[in-house]
Amino acid sequence: MGEEVINGNILESTNPVVDIYPLSNYVFSSKQPLIHRDETLAERAQRMKANYGSYGLRTRVEAVLLVELLKHPHLLLLQVKNSFFKLPGGRLRPGESEIDGLKRKLSSKLSINEDGFDTKWEVGECLGKWWRPDFETIMYPYLPTSVRKPKECTKLFLVKLPMTQKFSVPKNLKMLAVPLFEIHENYKTYGSVIAGVPQLLSRFSFNVVEN
Amino acid sequence: MGEEVINGNILESTNPVVDIYPLSNYVFSSKQPLIHRDETLAERAQRMKANYGSYGLRTRVEAVLLVELLKHPHLLLLQVKNSFFKLPGGRLRPGESEIDGLKRKLSSKLSINEDGFDTKWEVGECLGKWWRPDFETIMYPYLPTSVRKPKECTKLFLVKLPMTQKFSVPKNLKMLAVPLFEIHENYKTYGSVIAGVPQLLSRFSFNVVEN
Repeated sequence: MGEEVINGNILESTNPVVDIYPLSNYVFSSKQPLIHRDETLAERAQRMKANYGSYGLRTRVEAVLLVELLKHPHLLLLQVKNSFFKLPGGRLRPGESEIDGLKRKLSSKLSINEDGFDTKWEVGECLGKWWRPDFETIMYPYLPTSVRKPKECTKLFLVKLPMTQKFSVPKNLKMLAVPLFEIHENYKTYGSVIAGVPQLLSRFSFNVVEN
Repeated sequence: MGEEVINGNILESTNPVVDIYPLSNYVFSSKQPLIHRDETLAERAQRMKANYGSYGLRTRVEAVLLVELLKHPHLLLLQVKNSFFKLPGGRLRPGESEIDGLKRKLSSKLSINEDGFDTKWEVGECLGKWWRPDFETIMYPYLPTSVRKPKECTKLFLVKLPMTQKFSVPKNLKMLAVPLFEIHENYKTYGSVIAGVPQLLSRFSFNVVEN
């Protein structure tokens, strides 16, 4: 928390400050592809139904990872098959805590060693959550009134990267650093959840740490 | 902060809980109209330029006030001339703190006594901030890289209403309680700032307090 003064108005430490580091501080390599269980939307819906039958409401956890490039925050996104984008993360196991689950998913997707002992993930603030009322793709940042049994809840967390880190990205995924100005309100390309991330981040101040 | 358990996953108190009360708990009356200094967009831009010349970057503070109706959170919005919508708030005076300024603006716009001694405004979390790079209407939830001298910064705060309260709304404004599902991604009607409020609120859990 800092105290800024703009034009004599004391900004009462209302903006938590997040350090971000240049993209060039990070090293990216590739590793064995992750197996994609979801081949079609229909198959995915089918699997979600089966899982819901067994486990009830599932919680997904996803990470907002930021780097700096050209003095602007960039979001690290995974691109699947040169088409859709997703935040790194995944579903919790029954009984697993959100933070443990997010660390496990980040390690399996982005660490050199899948057990993640080479990476310390610092899971920070919850930025927002989205509800999936049924087994379709559409999600809402609130629980629609007509929905008594939501099928999935996705929670976004700010994950603070250290000054340097090695990432290892599965070969069937591509990792991209995308500027916030490209993502903001760009629902068509990134979908509602990702397109809203710049707004969710707007309460933070970013401190670009130069080398 | 509470601890919820969904399907055995402990939600680690990551969602602050906000109490909201039924719309019927609140009483609305009207008072003398506020003088609108802005007659046209061109005049408004002119005034912003003059103010920027005198004072530099201005900070606006705006309130997100919530009530419950039909088991769904509703946002209190002011409608101007049966056309555009705004959040209650306004610009800080030079040297004024954000919280004091927001309380002053809420009292002048919504309290029965303009000095607000009849109202205790509980200003809570900062939800987000938007930057206006020039004297136009467009705003961004980040500072565009090309902008060295932004003209205005608007900060949104969650203001927690007490169980009951009397509001007095200037006759030339209309106060409406609009459901979050109506606002979400409805940029055309509400503009980017308001249309993004449901996402900014998604990290909170709402506790509807019945009478």
